[in-house]
Amino acid sequence: MGRIVVKFGGTSVATVERIRQAARHVKREVEAGHQVAVVVSAMSGKTNELVGWVKDAGGVDADQREYDAVVASGEQVTAGLMAIVLQSMGVASRSYQGWQVPIHTDEAHAVARIAEIDPTNLEADFAAGLVPVITGFQGIAPSGRITTLGRGGSDTSAVAVAAAVKADRCDIYTDVDGVYTTDPRITPKARRLSKVAFEEMLEMASLGAKVLMIRSVEMAMAHNVRLLVRSTFDDPDAPQIAPDGTPGVPGTLVCDEDEIMEKQIVSGVTLARAESKITLRDVKDRPGVAAAIFGALADEQIVVDMIVQNISDDGSTTDITFTVPDAEHDKAVKVLEAAAKAGRFEYSRLSTAKGGAKVSVVGVGMRNHAGVAASMFKALADKGINIQLITTSEIKTSVLIDDEYAELAVRALHTYYGLDKEDA
Amino acid sequence: MGRIVVKFGGTSVATVERIRQAARHVKREVEAGHQVAVVVSAMSGKTNELVGWVKDAGGVDADQREYDAVVASGEQVTAGLMAIVLQSMGVASRSYQGWQVPIHTDEAHAVARIAEIDPTNLEADFAAGLVPVITGFQGIAPSGRITTLGRGGSDTSAVAVAAAVKADRCDIYTDVDGVYTTDPRITPKARRLSKVAFEEMLEMASLGAKVLMIRSVEMAMAHNVRLLVRSTFDDPDAPQIAPDGTPGVPGTLVCDEDEIMEKQIVSGVTLARAESKITLRDVKDRPGVAAAIFGALADEQIVVDMIVQNISDDGSTTDITFTVPDAEHDKAVKVLEAAAKAGRFEYSRLSTAKGGAKVSVVGVGMRNHAGVAASMFKALADKGINIQLITTSEIKTSVLIDDEYAELAVRALHTYYGLDKEDA
Repeated sequence: MGRIVVKFGGTSVATVERIRQAARHVKREVEAGHQVAVVVSAMSGKTNELVGWVKDAGGVDADQREYDAVVASGEQVTAGLMAIVLQSMGVASRSYQGWQVPIHTDEAHAVARIAEIDPTNLEADFAAGLVPVITGFQGIAPSGRITTLGRGGSDTSAVAVAAAVKADRCDIYTDVDGVYTTDPRITPKARRLSKVAFEEMLEMASLGAKVLMIRSVEMAMAHNVRLLVRSTFDDPDAPQIAPDGTPGVPGTLVCDEDEIMEKQIVSGVTLARAESKITLRDVKDRPGVAAAIFGALADEQIVVDMIVQNISDDGSTTDITFTVPDAEHDKAVKVLEAAAKAGRFEYSRLSTAKGGAKVSVVGVGMRNHAGVAASMFKALADKGINIQLITTSEIKTSVLIDDEYAELAVRALHTYYGLDKEDA
Repeated sequence: MGRIVVKFGGTSVATVERIRQAARHVKREVEAGHQVAVVVSAMSGKTNELVGWVKDAGGVDADQREYDAVVASGEQVTAGLMAIVLQSMGVASRSYQGWQVPIHTDEAHAVARIAEIDPTNLEADFAAGLVPVITGFQGIAPSGRITTLGRGGSDTSAVAVAAAVKADRCDIYTDVDGVYTTDPRITPKARRLSKVAFEEMLEMASLGAKVLMIRSVEMAMAHNVRLLVRSTFDDPDAPQIAPDGTPGVPGTLVCDEDEIMEKQIVSGVTLARAESKITLRDVKDRPGVAAAIFGALADEQIVVDMIVQNISDDGSTTDITFTVPDAEHDKAVKVLEAAAKAGRFEYSRLSTAKGGAKVSVVGVGMRNHAGVAASMFKALADKGINIQLITTSEIKTSVLIDDEYAELAVRALHTYYGLDKEDA
């Protein structure tokens, strides 16, 4: 007996038929004796339709408060339908819109942050044996107007509800069955992880494993809400995971690393392509020069990924290299040249190369194992892969290589760190 | 300078382009110096889509509270889009959902009645020069859950808002340009009425002139809210009606009969087809026998229209005749026979005829003019039309005739009572 918050994304509730499939998972958990709350997204495609109308009506400058009022209607529909379907299966249920729970947010319309969730109504429902079905993605501002949390906000809603009612687990039902050691399209030996630490998930999410919104993982980590990523399209009546996460579970549990007994040194290998490398040679080194360069880029909303700075021989100049998405390459060059012209910093030469591939290994086990970076470089060298850039963090080591070698590098590292499926 | 509530139906807001056309009418009124509040329906087709999903999800027994939560989302979308479009035209505006106004209703989900509208927020908007855009068709129950008012409820919402803010007029924008003396498909001589009394509108609405929901007219009459029925598709920049309703106005003003200076004896001629006539011969006459007969029909949701009872010669038996829609004929006969068998009443013979046509003349002027009924019968006799049944009320006289003569009768009466267009 536990308390579980379950969340269904847009593809999981795209039609009434799919809502019925999703509801069977809820019914199973209720019949297992759990207290369950449900958080739902809009039917897939609906939010885009609503956003399209808003753009038609008011262009990009449309009042964000009205944008929120319009766009929030999508989840309202799904929540009501889910409650009806649950009732038709004999599961007592009722729907809530964000303002009815209430889910209090700040006033930042279209990108609101949850401030506080009052658990009183939900606790009363649990006590009465009801399954509350809550609209994801939305809340109510102090002004009394509806807010939305921005794209992917339903994951965040689910985690926040789970934190508010002190749930034992937050199950994120989606169209994939978990988090993989690497992209299965690159190697069939990719393996689903049964557990992954919050920190690992954050590094993997930001590197392109788009299973969970990064914001929801941050919130889950902050409130220590255990997340189970699993597929809506699994047979709801098949044998299930126990809340303690025994082996063979259908899904991946994202949890505190203390809960992961046997830590892998490396849990996953990720790949990001189409990275442009930009180097500024002989940058006149003075305090604040890095802030001047990357401030100029940030002012133009250019997101910088890897950053490497080498100290020069004489200490008066330095070389700075960083990567941006290929799509931002031309804009970045223009911004840098203009900023240098305006005297914000000085350099002798700017050189760039498009089409790099960033390969990273991620794992909390790295913290206690020296030499992970060195072994990674050796594994790549053994395949004749040249490394152009290196960056490291506590639980991640990334290299930039030629795109031609991208798949080869991922497969080599996946095998090297023992991540391959046993039967593959 | 006045205060106007304007309401747009589903066809008037079916697309963003149409919302823009509707908004031009609002802008014109604002620029004329009026304080304006807007009430909107869902985009046409949307409510049906939502109702369809609810049926798919839960069948006909779906929880009405959830039905309301789902179906109310349609108006929410239109209200937000209308506010955005108005803003894009330079008209300061904001949207309200029923619960935000708030529009308080009873707990009768799906068929709720408005209990009270708090005008505080709307008054503040008027004072600040804002145009509030309010979702029609919905409100909030004492339980805090969303309610809907039933089909056509947006007209009722508009009238209730107009009453709450003491508006000078409630403009109902729709896809017809007013109320006509009769169906223009029957005679091209049909003329748009510039004014029609509440009572006349009620009689015409119930007889099939489906321009306004009868409930909203009743409410308008009770609160003396002047209704202007007009077309959204008129050129918003053409010369407009003055609030006092000078001749040549684009639309029909539905108002207290005191406001109509020159009262027509007859304002309109209406036609309802496919009426079945049912006669019970020699009904044993005793107190309560009519209640027994029509109670049996009402128990089965059969709506009875005309009712005629003649006193018999000896006072012990009577003949009772009434009409029901042809579609209800078979069911009505079955109900009557079963009720008689159960001893609820006695008669000697039951005779019926399908396919009658009910022609009515309506006008508040009848009150002060004797002989309207007689002149009607003469006008019909002159065309050789046989009358099967007659019923009368204070402002309406109806006859049932053979359907073959329906158009002939309407055209004859329309001409006889001077309703024909002058240039037709």
